[in-house]
Amino acid sequence: MTERLLLGPGPSNAAPEVLASLSDPLVGHMDPAFLDTLDRVSSMLREVMRTSNRLTFAVSATGSGGMEAAIVNLVEPGDTAIVCVNGVFGSRMTEVAARAGARVVTVEAPWGSPVDPQAVASALDSHPDARLVGIVHAETSTGTRSDVQAVAAAVSGRALLVVDAVTSLGGMPLEVDGWGIDVCYSGTQKCLSVPPGLAPITFSDRAIERVRSRTSPVRSWYLDVTMLERYWGSDRVYHHTAPISMVNALEAGLRLVLDEGLEARWDRHRRVASELGEALEARGFTYVPHPDHRLPMLHCVRVPDGFDEAAERKRLLTEHGIEVGGGLGAFAGTCWRIGLMGHNARTGSVTRLLDALDRALV
Amino acid sequence: MTERLLLGPGPSNAAPEVLASLSDPLVGHMDPAFLDTLDRVSSMLREVMRTSNRLTFAVSATGSGGMEAAIVNLVEPGDTAIVCVNGVFGSRMTEVAARAGARVVTVEAPWGSPVDPQAVASALDSHPDARLVGIVHAETSTGTRSDVQAVAAAVSGRALLVVDAVTSLGGMPLEVDGWGIDVCYSGTQKCLSVPPGLAPITFSDRAIERVRSRTSPVRSWYLDVTMLERYWGSDRVYHHTAPISMVNALEAGLRLVLDEGLEARWDRHRRVASELGEALEARGFTYVPHPDHRLPMLHCVRVPDGFDEAAERKRLLTEHGIEVGGGLGAFAGTCWRIGLMGHNARTGSVTRLLDALDRALV
Repeated sequence: MTERLLLGPGPSNAAPEVLASLSDPLVGHMDPAFLDTLDRVSSMLREVMRTSNRLTFAVSATGSGGMEAAIVNLVEPGDTAIVCVNGVFGSRMTEVAARAGARVVTVEAPWGSPVDPQAVASALDSHPDARLVGIVHAETSTGTRSDVQAVAAAVSGRALLVVDAVTSLGGMPLEVDGWGIDVCYSGTQKCLSVPPGLAPITFSDRAIERVRSRTSPVRSWYLDVTMLERYWGSDRVYHHTAPISMVNALEAGLRLVLDEGLEARWDRHRRVASELGEALEARGFTYVPHPDHRLPMLHCVRVPDGFDEAAERKRLLTEHGIEVGGGLGAFAGTCWRIGLMGHNARTGSVTRLLDALDRALV
Repeated sequence: MTERLLLGPGPSNAAPEVLASLSDPLVGHMDPAFLDTLDRVSSMLREVMRTSNRLTFAVSATGSGGMEAAIVNLVEPGDTAIVCVNGVFGSRMTEVAARAGARVVTVEAPWGSPVDPQAVASALDSHPDARLVGIVHAETSTGTRSDVQAVAAAVSGRALLVVDAVTSLGGMPLEVDGWGIDVCYSGTQKCLSVPPGLAPITFSDRAIERVRSRTSPVRSWYLDVTMLERYWGSDRVYHHTAPISMVNALEAGLRLVLDEGLEARWDRHRRVASELGEALEARGFTYVPHPDHRLPMLHCVRVPDGFDEAAERKRLLTEHGIEVGGGLGAFAGTCWRIGLMGHNARTGSVTRLLDALDRALV
């Protein structure tokens, strides 16, 4: 059995309690015991996402499936969708929206820079009919945080605001209701430290109203929230067989988050991030994003001159069992992406990484 | 922790080895160790599906997501899709196809009867431009087997043949290459006895050719096989984060299937099915399908006169921890659906069910 310390862009290591819960015996997806589990998961997700949205649940797919669920429900063919792009996952959202039939308008920012709220406001001025604005909170491809609160203020209810919180949820401040987000989705395998496979998602009443008032059916049967809410809600109408073991794992992971306390968890990510940051800079690594926009859970850094990043990444994996990520796009070959997510956001992770790294740098 | 003997329409209980594998520590989705796992899973799926199709993998969604993956890749807006309907899952396929933009032509058979191959041939005569014929091998809503081999002969290459093998795979004969099936999908939680969450799927070269020659993009980014094959195939291009723990569980489940031997497993399902069938008929239950079309892994039976099926189902669950399923549609309130799938297709399951049942019938 291969053991890894997962310090890449995700997945992170799952906590032992979470891994153990995966082995719980199965119950049926319509069993009263499992329906209670669904209710607890919804309720805990509301706490972690900081929302009172009734429709808060987990899509039976990974984070990218969550993105597709958000977009495909809101978009009707011909709708205008404004999508902010400053990395891989913003680009992905344009692709998903186009396939859903949207006319996509992009608000671009350089990779490693945050989205400019003023540019979003201007795009809305130019496209007042836009159905939605989509933005990635924490760009995993560049380690960059965009100010979703400021973007939400710029949107100001003129369109539905869709936020990708795949990497941010559970690791840094995110306020679905407080900021005025309409649809927010995440993945389980980052700061929640649950294996990949589910996408937590929440829809505001305004967003659901939008889905209900569609004139054409949602193009995806599997992701149609008007049917999914009849299973996760009190109707309990069968739609598809829920991924029972993964839902159990999500419950275990959310319980750990809430036992720790959400704000304490954000603090922990911030504290351990600065430990790593100082150590990396002392070793000649330099951050891609400006300090104001760095993610605590994902560090996108240029490697020192003369440092063979690919060989060194491979050495860390094979000799030390530590996974870190390479750069993407223009950053390939010159950058690393180091994740300190959820269960792995601990001083011990930093120490183990630095010990292994120093053997190469010496 | 709730313990259940799952003798409903699925999920079945996972084997202990499968549950244990879910707790394996995580590795990254691009880790060489995990990429080897993907190769082993593909290879074992080919054996279990009886195909040499290169593109044989697991969709990161449940069986219904597999249905959507099959349809959304093959269908372009305006295409004609012939869908055979003799129960809930055939109806579901019409819905999925319509949302993908297909003009749907149905070939109907009464619930509890198999699809008529001659009716499929006639539909193709009337719609020679049809892109695909879709059929459910084992209708979980009625416990009925359709003769896919005969339907394939009727189709005879005039359209792509899409087969839903969610309930049949691993529990009864299914020959993807031998019968001439183009796309076949399944679920993990039936006769493979792996928890729900993945959809094994295979595409013939002819089917992939069809996807490649589309003039419009696949409407789903998440399910687009032209991208998924670049991750599961030798390119190893990141698409979405694979559901690692579930893939590990699928590997463990497939290994058990192949260790037992596929044909021995089919025999076991058949043998245990006849044990249950005789016992049920002796107690006044009568089968919905004709003996020639009964499924070994799912028994759809009318309950005896005066038998309160809902109360009795609830009693089995709460007093004995045994789940059986109720009837659907016109069979609601008068039928049970009893599953003997995968790990649960054992004499011990039959005995435990009959013991519990006889306390009510006496």
